[in-house]
Amino acid sequence: MESVLQSSIFLSSNLTGPDLTKLLTPSAIAVIGASDDPKRIGGQPIYGLKNYGYKGIIIPVNSNRSTVQGLIAYSDIRSVTQSCDVALIALPADQVAEAVIHCGEANIPFAVVLSAGFAELGRPDLQKQLLDAVHASGVRVVGPNCTGLLNLNENIFSGFGAGFRNPNLKRGSVAMITQSGGFGYSVIAYAEQEGIGFSHMLATGNEVDITSLDMMEHLLRLDDVDVIVCYMEGIRDGRRLRHIGQLALQHGKPIVIWKVGNTDKGRKAALSHTANLTSAYVIYKAAFEEGGFIEIEDTGDLVDVVRAFQCRRLPLGKRVGILTTSGGAGVLLTDRCEQSGLIVPELSTTTTKKLKELGGGFATVENPVDLSAKLASDPDAFNHATRILLDDPNIDIVIIRSFAGTASDIWAKGLVHLLAECPKPVFINISGLASQSPLAIQVLEDNHIPCYPTPGRVVRGVAAIAKFSIQMKRYKNSIGDNELPSLLLPNLDLPNNSQVLSEKLSKAILQHYEIPVVSEYAVSKNEIHELHSIPFAFPVVVKVDSIDIPHKTEAGGVHLGLSTLDDVRNASLDVIANAQFYDITARIEGVLIQQSATGIELIIGGVNDPTFGPYVVIGFGGIYTEIINDTVMRFAPFNKATAIEMIGELKASRLFHGYRRQPKYALDRLATALCRVSQLLSENSDRIAEIDINPLFLQPTGEIMAADCLIRLM
Amino acid sequence: MESVLQSSIFLSSNLTGPDLTKLLTPSAIAVIGASDDPKRIGGQPIYGLKNYGYKGIIIPVNSNRSTVQGLIAYSDIRSVTQSCDVALIALPADQVAEAVIHCGEANIPFAVVLSAGFAELGRPDLQKQLLDAVHASGVRVVGPNCTGLLNLNENIFSGFGAGFRNPNLKRGSVAMITQSGGFGYSVIAYAEQEGIGFSHMLATGNEVDITSLDMMEHLLRLDDVDVIVCYMEGIRDGRRLRHIGQLALQHGKPIVIWKVGNTDKGRKAALSHTANLTSAYVIYKAAFEEGGFIEIEDTGDLVDVVRAFQCRRLPLGKRVGILTTSGGAGVLLTDRCEQSGLIVPELSTTTTKKLKELGGGFATVENPVDLSAKLASDPDAFNHATRILLDDPNIDIVIIRSFAGTASDIWAKGLVHLLAECPKPVFINISGLASQSPLAIQVLEDNHIPCYPTPGRVVRGVAAIAKFSIQMKRYKNSIGDNELPSLLLPNLDLPNNSQVLSEKLSKAILQHYEIPVVSEYAVSKNEIHELHSIPFAFPVVVKVDSIDIPHKTEAGGVHLGLSTLDDVRNASLDVIANAQFYDITARIEGVLIQQSATGIELIIGGVNDPTFGPYVVIGFGGIYTEIINDTVMRFAPFNKATAIEMIGELKASRLFHGYRRQPKYALDRLATALCRVSQLLSENSDRIAEIDINPLFLQPTGEIMAADCLIRLM
Repeated sequence: MESVLQSSIFLSSNLTGPDLTKLLTPSAIAVIGASDDPKRIGGQPIYGLKNYGYKGIIIPVNSNRSTVQGLIAYSDIRSVTQSCDVALIALPADQVAEAVIHCGEANIPFAVVLSAGFAELGRPDLQKQLLDAVHASGVRVVGPNCTGLLNLNENIFSGFGAGFRNPNLKRGSVAMITQSGGFGYSVIAYAEQEGIGFSHMLATGNEVDITSLDMMEHLLRLDDVDVIVCYMEGIRDGRRLRHIGQLALQHGKPIVIWKVGNTDKGRKAALSHTANLTSAYVIYKAAFEEGGFIEIEDTGDLVDVVRAFQCRRLPLGKRVGILTTSGGAGVLLTDRCEQSGLIVPELSTTTTKKLKELGGGFATVENPVDLSAKLASDPDAFNHATRILLDDPNIDIVIIRSFAGTASDIWAKGLVHLLAECPKPVFINISGLASQSPLAIQVLEDNHIPCYPTPGRVVRGVAAIAKFSIQMKRYKNSIGDNELPSLLLPNLDLPNNSQVLSEKLSKAILQHYEIPVVSEYAVSKNEIHELHSIPFAFPVVVKVDSIDIPHKTEAGGVHLGLSTLDDVRNASLDVIANAQFYDITARIEGVLIQQSATGIELIIGGVNDPTFGPYVVIGFGGIYTEIINDTVMRFAPFNKATAIEMIGELKASRLFHGYRRQPKYALDRLATALCRVSQLLSENSDRIAEIDINPLFLQPTGEIMAADCLIRLM
Repeated sequence: MESVLQSSIFLSSNLTGPDLTKLLTPSAIAVIGASDDPKRIGGQPIYGLKNYGYKGIIIPVNSNRSTVQGLIAYSDIRSVTQSCDVALIALPADQVAEAVIHCGEANIPFAVVLSAGFAELGRPDLQKQLLDAVHASGVRVVGPNCTGLLNLNENIFSGFGAGFRNPNLKRGSVAMITQSGGFGYSVIAYAEQEGIGFSHMLATGNEVDITSLDMMEHLLRLDDVDVIVCYMEGIRDGRRLRHIGQLALQHGKPIVIWKVGNTDKGRKAALSHTANLTSAYVIYKAAFEEGGFIEIEDTGDLVDVVRAFQCRRLPLGKRVGILTTSGGAGVLLTDRCEQSGLIVPELSTTTTKKLKELGGGFATVENPVDLSAKLASDPDAFNHATRILLDDPNIDIVIIRSFAGTASDIWAKGLVHLLAECPKPVFINISGLASQSPLAIQVLEDNHIPCYPTPGRVVRGVAAIAKFSIQMKRYKNSIGDNELPSLLLPNLDLPNNSQVLSEKLSKAILQHYEIPVVSEYAVSKNEIHELHSIPFAFPVVVKVDSIDIPHKTEAGGVHLGLSTLDDVRNASLDVIANAQFYDITARIEGVLIQQSATGIELIIGGVNDPTFGPYVVIGFGGIYTEIINDTVMRFAPFNKATAIEMIGELKASRLFHGYRRQPKYALDRLATALCRVSQLLSENSDRIAEIDINPLFLQPTGEIMAADCLIRLM
């Protein structure tokens, strides 16, 4: 499969992480600092590996003992002759770096550092030492300050803490990666109570070498993993996060992500907890929205979202049919669907007709459908109604507020049978009565029909799979889509140092990218008095022309709305005087006389984020822009469909569509310009740090005009 | 206790509902349409009352049988000599009205109509007939189309459906009122699984007479009810809803409200379900925010919020101290608190010092506090740390991510002991380990320490009690607060018919309420040519002066920014010509010449909502107002503190505080004007339907100036 990213900035070799097969399914595991006491950090992994079913070889290393928990112990990892894939290290922090070097000498490819006492406790020096050891030895390291790695399907309990003491944890196809080991297990313990089984729990601690992202990438390729859950405080490589999102879409496996440390307070705590650099949450959010990730905010959400993906089918869209036995439940399922961005459409006339033919005096045959008491307690009729709803071409997914009769096991079996012939997903909100029938729920869940106790939770699950399905569709549609020809700048002579470009040069670059700018006429200082005509109509704008004054308004260097030649001459002298007063060292060439533009005032900006890569923002201009924060952001580059989407997502986009006797605005050229800016940023991501087109005027005809532009190089 | 509402429009006698004591605790209950089959609607109440512990007298009425389920049956309710408080009616819809008349003749004060087939099934005629019977008989009626009334503490099972078939439902102090009987029970069934016990479940159906609001008001007065939960599709009397909110604050009992039918789709379904008129959700929301109500959106929220109030203590504010044994949990509890409007403040230096003295090498002694492994598994040390946090004057409430050791029952008992001496609430988020100790959880919950399984849910609970506590505080502070003197209009000659007032008259009313308006100079048609001076500085605005043209801009009746007398004369002739062309029948007196106002453009509007009463809205002016919807609304009248609150809640309120080199704005006079508008509306709520001050200009000095105003009478 060819990825859309192959033509973009992403494809550098460091986007592919290490092969972690031997780390997660080692044939032999050493424990350096092995303890005879099964409760100690160095003793618990020995106990767990020995007693909970690990089939490989366990190698205790302890310089003071000849046996550990009944196993022969080595005094030095270097004296182990047995080939070994992973060393768990449970030594004092200041001995860890040396132990890693020793692992390298013993040809052990992976080490997991369980010990704490590094950057998280104010010892970045020890963490640096460890990093140096990683580079010197070639050993790939997980941790430090992590609780270890749990591979449940292989019974590999390589770690310590509560999660590693429970051999009976429910197995399943959900893999968890967590930057907080203790918290990770408590999530799993709660999820297990709700019936979710796990394949892995991988704690990554301070991530001195192997990261959560390496883990994610590896897990996406494993057959026994369907869903990845990640508890994340922060990551260092935003581009790779985005790349992994695309991989997740390729594999059709969602990464359910729980990003914490997002509010100011939360961020403070995250910093002191893992000594991580946390980028602004808004950029994370944009990366998640780009695809592959479903964001959650609580253990409860996690369970609801993971449960949704257990259904192993994706809807074709987000149009929900609702079948209830209570008008009240129908109303609020509808409310929640619409609040969650799902659609509760009208049913086709065929569907309505067929439902009426079912008889029984329906309470409502519109969506949400409210079944009559008679049909609601007849399992066959109930399933027949479900089938009619599933057959409606307007419906992508069905939510059932469950069967109300006593024969709920018959209903459940019938529903399973029905779904064998229909590819659309069905989700159940179990009502009070059905909850008295554990058998029915068991039948449904064994057959991948997710069951939820409340309306809010069932809708959360449905919204998650609908979202992932739409992300996948968008991803597939975008492959190979690159409609705008590349316009790499061959002749533009960008200065070599980091600086802000002049308005003239910035606008020249815009024009090269086919973004229209206002007509402009440069007048040198000496020509001002001789000025007897200008090559376009009044009114005009006069701006000081100086490479040294990027923020002209602040310097008193702009006059707007000038209607006579006299006014223009006076304004020209005035802005030059102001600018010279503002900065006496500024080199001033003269003034720029510009056509006054009119229309809706917009801003298009772009930033080359050092972590996540270049992105583009569109917003409304004027003082409200930043205060109301009506902006939409996407990573660059993007295609025109995305640009149109962005314009539509502006809260005030109604302004474009003939709002309150205002004209309607053609948006095609604006969308093209947005794409062009995204192209400009991504094609020149090695040079352009920032771009700010402010204002850009949009006319009802669709004509656009950049009235000012600033580009900052890096 | 004197209520703030005593001086307002509220206190009319119909705000007090009927005494429902005999309805909810009847000494004798008749069932009209009693059936021998305990599964039928007319049979189930007989069965439930007879077998589940009702201590009163059961009176079956059936014209065809001499006994019903072993009890002697009467053929006609009028032949019953026994005094009887309630008649349940389970007859075909077209026989119900007559049965109610008969109840009146038999001196039965209350009837509950279980039968369906009225407005909800397209028979408003039968519902009207029933209403007429209510008025004719004096019998107060619940329903029709309701499942009945359940009083668990008295074992009164007066209804049908699943909720009335379960004699073992957990008893408690939560009363539920529901407009959807079937849905109501399923909520109770779920809540019971989560350990919540109920006192009442009251279904109100189509509410032809007795309403949810009547039920609420009565339940607030009952000693065995602590919390009221209401599932609401719509109500008819918004003023009374608000009044009951105030009663709830007086009694210190929250009404947990689940309002459905809020999105367009949801509203459609609600209409077809209960044939109710649903006011716009935004007004409901404002009524809930005014106080007494905690809004929820799902069965899960309901459980979390109700559980919170089981703690039977309220915090003094919303500052949360967090104590965890995992940095990760601390981070995300902090995130969720801040997202929910709670504060996670710095700890006092004394607290930090005392925590450090506890020893054990804390991971973090800042808020959120992360305990070291040593302290985390020592119950005494853990509780000592909790006590230190509770003693901090910066902290109103403590969330504990639970104790991590094996001795969790000792921890729980210690915590109970500690709280006996401390009035602040403590909430627990049970972690994986503690969940293995049901004994500890039992001890905590028996002692009113709420326990939650996830961080998101514990914060939801804390946010609910903090919100209610703040509502109560605001309520107490507002009692007797009426700082602005009343300004009832004695001399203003309001026209008698419903109409839009002229700008001149509208502004005169504003001035009477001490709201400044721009200087204005009226010029008659004949005087325009003679105009040689105006009594204030240029630039000015010219508007047509006509009582028949309320929307002058649409009629071409306004010219802005005029700087010379010539321009003024020309503009005057122009606006008159335009206006006459726009409406040839319009009576035109001449023009108004007005001072041009400058400053931030605001809108203040007010509406006398027929359901909820008068309210006032403030927003930013210009085209963005409606699109971005940056407005804040409150019911009128309100005091200056509320007005200041409103201004601060505008999303763009940063504009007032020296944003981006803009000036700072004094806001005192704006707040006063807001109060004045609220007073104008409420003092004249019998005449003024609508007011629109648009624009109102605010200057940095705080000076305000209404540039245009429209008042519509009713």
